[in-house]
Amino acid sequence: MEHADLAEELSRIVGPRFVRTERAELATFASDGLPTLRRTPALAVLPGSGREVSHVLAALHRRGIPFVARGAGTGLSGGALGEAPAVLVTLTRLSRILAVDPENRRAVVEPGVVNAALSRAAAPFGLMYAPDPSSQTACTIGGNVAENAGGPHCLKYGVTTNHILELEVALPSGDVVRLGCPGGDAWGPDLVGTFTGSEGMFGIATEITVRLVPLPTDVRTMLADYTSLRRAGEAVTAIITAGIVPAALEMMDHNAIEMVESSAYAAGYPVDAAAVLLVELDGSPAAVEADAVATRTLLEGSGARTVRVARSAAEREKLWQGRKKAFGAMGRISADLVVQDAVVPRTALPDVLEAIAAIGARHRLRVTNVFHAGDGNLHPNLSFDASDADQLARVHAASGEIIRACVAAGGTITGEHGVGLDKLAYMPLVFGPDELGLMAAVRRVFDPDEQANPGKVLPTSQCREWRPWSTA
Amino acid sequence: MEHADLAEELSRIVGPRFVRTERAELATFASDGLPTLRRTPALAVLPGSGREVSHVLAALHRRGIPFVARGAGTGLSGGALGEAPAVLVTLTRLSRILAVDPENRRAVVEPGVVNAALSRAAAPFGLMYAPDPSSQTACTIGGNVAENAGGPHCLKYGVTTNHILELEVALPSGDVVRLGCPGGDAWGPDLVGTFTGSEGMFGIATEITVRLVPLPTDVRTMLADYTSLRRAGEAVTAIITAGIVPAALEMMDHNAIEMVESSAYAAGYPVDAAAVLLVELDGSPAAVEADAVATRTLLEGSGARTVRVARSAAEREKLWQGRKKAFGAMGRISADLVVQDAVVPRTALPDVLEAIAAIGARHRLRVTNVFHAGDGNLHPNLSFDASDADQLARVHAASGEIIRACVAAGGTITGEHGVGLDKLAYMPLVFGPDELGLMAAVRRVFDPDEQANPGKVLPTSQCREWRPWSTA
Repeated sequence: MEHADLAEELSRIVGPRFVRTERAELATFASDGLPTLRRTPALAVLPGSGREVSHVLAALHRRGIPFVARGAGTGLSGGALGEAPAVLVTLTRLSRILAVDPENRRAVVEPGVVNAALSRAAAPFGLMYAPDPSSQTACTIGGNVAENAGGPHCLKYGVTTNHILELEVALPSGDVVRLGCPGGDAWGPDLVGTFTGSEGMFGIATEITVRLVPLPTDVRTMLADYTSLRRAGEAVTAIITAGIVPAALEMMDHNAIEMVESSAYAAGYPVDAAAVLLVELDGSPAAVEADAVATRTLLEGSGARTVRVARSAAEREKLWQGRKKAFGAMGRISADLVVQDAVVPRTALPDVLEAIAAIGARHRLRVTNVFHAGDGNLHPNLSFDASDADQLARVHAASGEIIRACVAAGGTITGEHGVGLDKLAYMPLVFGPDELGLMAAVRRVFDPDEQANPGKVLPTSQCREWRPWSTA
Repeated sequence: MEHADLAEELSRIVGPRFVRTERAELATFASDGLPTLRRTPALAVLPGSGREVSHVLAALHRRGIPFVARGAGTGLSGGALGEAPAVLVTLTRLSRILAVDPENRRAVVEPGVVNAALSRAAAPFGLMYAPDPSSQTACTIGGNVAENAGGPHCLKYGVTTNHILELEVALPSGDVVRLGCPGGDAWGPDLVGTFTGSEGMFGIATEITVRLVPLPTDVRTMLADYTSLRRAGEAVTAIITAGIVPAALEMMDHNAIEMVESSAYAAGYPVDAAAVLLVELDGSPAAVEADAVATRTLLEGSGARTVRVARSAAEREKLWQGRKKAFGAMGRISADLVVQDAVVPRTALPDVLEAIAAIGARHRLRVTNVFHAGDGNLHPNLSFDASDADQLARVHAASGEIIRACVAAGGTITGEHGVGLDKLAYMPLVFGPDELGLMAAVRRVFDPDEQANPGKVLPTSQCREWRPWSTA
């Protein structure tokens, strides 16, 4: 009954078509990009404007009902999952690009705008939105802000937080605030930086001002293949140490190559290689040429068997297609796939890759590595069948061991997918109770009742309680 | 008496030599780089370690005495000024470089390490600390963190916040926390980003882990001179629009040229020019050569009278000396100098420079512009004599008009000097009561009693009060 009453109130705000309460409808919202967890929300509401978002949150606030914001649902840490009594606030209807300002190189978008659509809108002005998650043809800018998303080209251009200038935010109370200022430099405590990457715990961004960057005048894509995974890892360090900043520097291991080459996305990678490196350079033609000469020397010097340079846009596209569709290709060999995410110091890459292979072997799991080698951001992928309880248990155990190995090597538990539900238990590996407590206290500034994306990111039982308010 | 008692307690922590209570001693701490304000603290304490900082803060906390952290005192917004009953916590003794880790490109330093000393320590490893405020031979990393300092080379490399990985912080309670994690990517709410730029309101960083970047293999410095200030401004936009990212892109106007050339730091700038642009390119030799060709074409195309390229390290040094010592040169023509700081969209530079000239003329003040043109970060400098009340009043009035003109052009009130005391009144020009209130609430997470650098940055009377804690 309470449900029916809530549904009716929300219907008055967004229209009855945009409140979903049927079991079958809710099933489509019960999972995101993390295949190991399912959660069914009390209902799903699809507001059509920032104003409607604010009214929806105010209504939920009055009733003390928690909520979870959801964009395209491509997230890989379970961040967009909501369990009843939580309500799912789905933002896909807020998909308008409100302004592109080429002179000052910025754009204003609603949170449901698809990442690739924004770059398409900027392209006629010679500009692009730089952060490019592999899911960029589906994922939304709002989700990118929540997760502080990365992508292959973030090695050179920086992750999402480096590209967000201003935010309009509906707080969990329904209050609407603007964070940052039009000049781009928020002064005083940096609330835009604090919000970006807060994984839905601070409220919902209803309008996002992003930085645009010039499209490079020249791009060169190179593929190097190695018969030793260790040598490929060493090549990464050699390139970065030489002071070259590639636009992207990606690695795929033997398993990944094999899966891509046996799929519809075959990119011509040598199937007998232990690893390939995909190196992209961009900039002015002469700068690219100079860096390309130096990069080839380093690749060959570190033992590359062949170094191939894409000679046309089509060939470049094809080399990238193998990388971008690798996850799809993995889908062919197993029902489910966990895309793990962790970071290690670049110099630790060779050792950690060997450790991960050993963990996979011990748990009898196929591990495939496709990742952003240039910034040490690993993605060991575990193929499995979630309906097999034993396999699922082995995936969980192997995931934990992989994360611990990365932390032990001086790394951290996630590079770009966020903590969400999946990494909640690992937070104490890298943060102490003091810092977790401070994070929780900052969160309560925005969300005093902990109603936004509850139960995620911060393992509350491990947080020290900070006295939040003067008693003087 | 209370003073004597406090001095005695602090002496037990840091040693009697390092507690300063005499009027004459305190006079040296009564001003910083902002000449328009003086404040005398109750006493000054100079701890010798992070542990001593923590004990000092705990002692002050027990007594309910506020404090202000101070590094080298080079700040330009009055951020390091403390007025009795506040105690000044001076960090110059914490000047150890604790580690340089070339493999992972990071260094760990105490807050009192001088900016230039860190780059000197990194140079033997082919690395540098990128943010380079003009005061870099004196200012400290701790102060740079507090103010989120910029500098000429931040156009390419990013400001301080992009280079801080991990912090050990003594909170105002005396509690010591570590923010961030060794992997560099703090996940969850970004406390390192929140602390950086918080202008001493959150506590004192006692240990700072910074990112180091490779020294460029080639550097090219060019000087272009213009007979029109507007044309020089347009050249800046032309270079950036072409997708070139200079390491630095600085502008000096006619007044600045004249002062430099009549000083001991004469750099050979043409004294009849309306403006000079100093463009520095860095990277690999071929990339630099390519960008240099393109840059020269753009400079000449926008009306440069001459374009000079430094042919040796000595000549480069000399071109930069004029820029870096410009503030010193200005010191020769007047007793005092206010170095203003504001940001405008690059495209607004020509109009805003004309508006600033008009404001200076109306208030009969000599205005000199020396600034980071590439990122629209203006520094209009006002020469005056602070002992002349009428001049001082005109400086205040002109400063306010300049800041308002920048905000009206879509800019903001400070680019790199911070808000401190000087810009406090301007915060409501760019932030509403909601956002100011949220900033204040975030600050109270770290400093519930508002004892750290009180009365700065946040105009509390204009802040909306946010309910900070669940009442549910």
